[in-house]
Amino acid sequence: MKLATLKRGGRDGTLVVVNRALTHCRPVPAIARTLQAALDDWEALEPQLRQVYEALNSGAFTDPEPFDPAACHSPLPRAYQWADGSAYVNHVELVRRARGAELPPEFWTDPLMYQGGSDSFVGPRDPVWALDEAWGIDLEAEVAVITGDVKMGATPTEAGKAIRLLMLVNDVSLRNLIPGELAKGFGFFQSKPASAFSPVAVTPDELGDDWRDGRVHRPLTVHLNGQLFGQPDAGTDMVFNFPQLVAHVTKTREMEAGSIIGSGTVSNKQGGLHGSSIANGGVGYCCLAEVRMYETIESGKPQTSFLKFGDTVRIDMFDRAGASIFGAIDQRVERYPS
Amino acid sequence: MKLATLKRGGRDGTLVVVNRALTHCRPVPAIARTLQAALDDWEALEPQLRQVYEALNSGAFTDPEPFDPAACHSPLPRAYQWADGSAYVNHVELVRRARGAELPPEFWTDPLMYQGGSDSFVGPRDPVWALDEAWGIDLEAEVAVITGDVKMGATPTEAGKAIRLLMLVNDVSLRNLIPGELAKGFGFFQSKPASAFSPVAVTPDELGDDWRDGRVHRPLTVHLNGQLFGQPDAGTDMVFNFPQLVAHVTKTREMEAGSIIGSGTVSNKQGGLHGSSIANGGVGYCCLAEVRMYETIESGKPQTSFLKFGDTVRIDMFDRAGASIFGAIDQRVERYPS
Repeated sequence: MKLATLKRGGRDGTLVVVNRALTHCRPVPAIARTLQAALDDWEALEPQLRQVYEALNSGAFTDPEPFDPAACHSPLPRAYQWADGSAYVNHVELVRRARGAELPPEFWTDPLMYQGGSDSFVGPRDPVWALDEAWGIDLEAEVAVITGDVKMGATPTEAGKAIRLLMLVNDVSLRNLIPGELAKGFGFFQSKPASAFSPVAVTPDELGDDWRDGRVHRPLTVHLNGQLFGQPDAGTDMVFNFPQLVAHVTKTREMEAGSIIGSGTVSNKQGGLHGSSIANGGVGYCCLAEVRMYETIESGKPQTSFLKFGDTVRIDMFDRAGASIFGAIDQRVERYPS
Repeated sequence: MKLATLKRGGRDGTLVVVNRALTHCRPVPAIARTLQAALDDWEALEPQLRQVYEALNSGAFTDPEPFDPAACHSPLPRAYQWADGSAYVNHVELVRRARGAELPPEFWTDPLMYQGGSDSFVGPRDPVWALDEAWGIDLEAEVAVITGDVKMGATPTEAGKAIRLLMLVNDVSLRNLIPGELAKGFGFFQSKPASAFSPVAVTPDELGDDWRDGRVHRPLTVHLNGQLFGQPDAGTDMVFNFPQLVAHVTKTREMEAGSIIGSGTVSNKQGGLHGSSIANGGVGYCCLAEVRMYETIESGKPQTSFLKFGDTVRIDMFDRAGASIFGAIDQRVERYPS
């Protein structure tokens, strides 16, 4: 099943069921007005939503609304929980190597995760707003899950059962604000502005065998200014799977329906700078920081710039037949109107 | 005006207007079913809520419902944003001194703030749940504000205008999980479990002259197991006021109505261990860590234990006539049922 949120209808938008081909959709006010409302009562409402989905796919409605990703907000325009892991430890190891530091061995067994802010996500076709290019604006292409309720101390098996939906995310990072902020010791805050999510969130069964072991086994495709920049496989080198990430969240607290847990920047192990780029036959990157780390490791300093006003970022994932699963995140970096 | 949320009526509870004396309340479904709904449309709804408040205070209703703080959830049972400052830099300086480190000078000019989790607050009379006493369970008594919408890059003056409500918070911390977590570099996560807020949130005008300069100028009273433990003044030694804290949040992002921003543990500068305790005429402490830091500075190691299962924490604030402004947070530490 595929679900999206149109911007109309207030801060939480309007829930629509979207057909598999992402061409048509249908509001479902008699079932749930918003995605959060559906998640709050998922066991009761999911079967009703699935009936609408099947009817949409079979062409049973005579008047389905055309589906326009540009009319979408993020599936949850605002959420009660957004926590982002760093499950692709290769990415973390590169960060450390680029600054000449060792990766602590426990990073391979204890997930790294930060608490994100979730009150003001932007839509998948909205600008990446910033007041200053000097902040070092970077994309981070990731996969995320939306969960149901999970008790404190849940095992990964219990946590896995609470995974309701999958989506993509652009976890924008302000790289030049990170060192100063992390030096203060309390983690990211100003360096993590509003994230954007894919137009559509899908139930895991939509991926068939490509959802297994708590991981999404498809390439995550990133274009920068229309050029292919990355297509690493999201199922490869993901050291902690989603059930483990959700269990990490719940070690000391309950977690409520509608919580979003991210994978961290997707990153595959590659030989080095020259073999990793798309031009040289590599799988490329899901953030600019990664190519800059390869550059730093090989030549002492980064060559590639961060994003500038006017640059565009497109993040998508395709099924085996080449069709977009979630719709594309497609954002342009713009100066915030002040 | 005073507002609270009763637990009945679903995950977001039922908004009630509470009279000034905290004896009676009234649901207002025709105005707003939940506090978040009221905040989402505050300009239009606040005058209507104030009419109910005035009628409650003047005894105009023949059938007001008795107000029971034990029936309350936190005013926002779940929120889209909970960010907590460390505005009482004295507290931060003691933490550093206890471990022999210097406070970086910029800590006096650049607020320290962490991104909290906000999907599953507990009510003011609910247990502090934990699976293990060895986590080092500690209270942190603080003041917090709830805001309206704030644009990116807001000045403190603009940010201050968006402060809608004030309340108290017990920002429970798991002290023994903090060192390992901060060493990972991404800030607090498992070490900050569910917070609880006071039964009632109040508009700033309820404090009269005691709300000035963006600070609450009243003592914050903490009892542990029925014994007075702290009563530092929340308006003293608060280096960053609430407008500055809100402006810090919005440096790189917009902030939405219903965001909660905390002050950090209230802490007044005192001479040292022996002069700081209530027994010796000091103002005491708003967390156990603070007395432990004084003990460490004076004798090399802490003497006071963290909270044990069965311990109780009561946090309250009284007006000049001795009446509770917000109602009391009153929690018992209990083992989470697994």
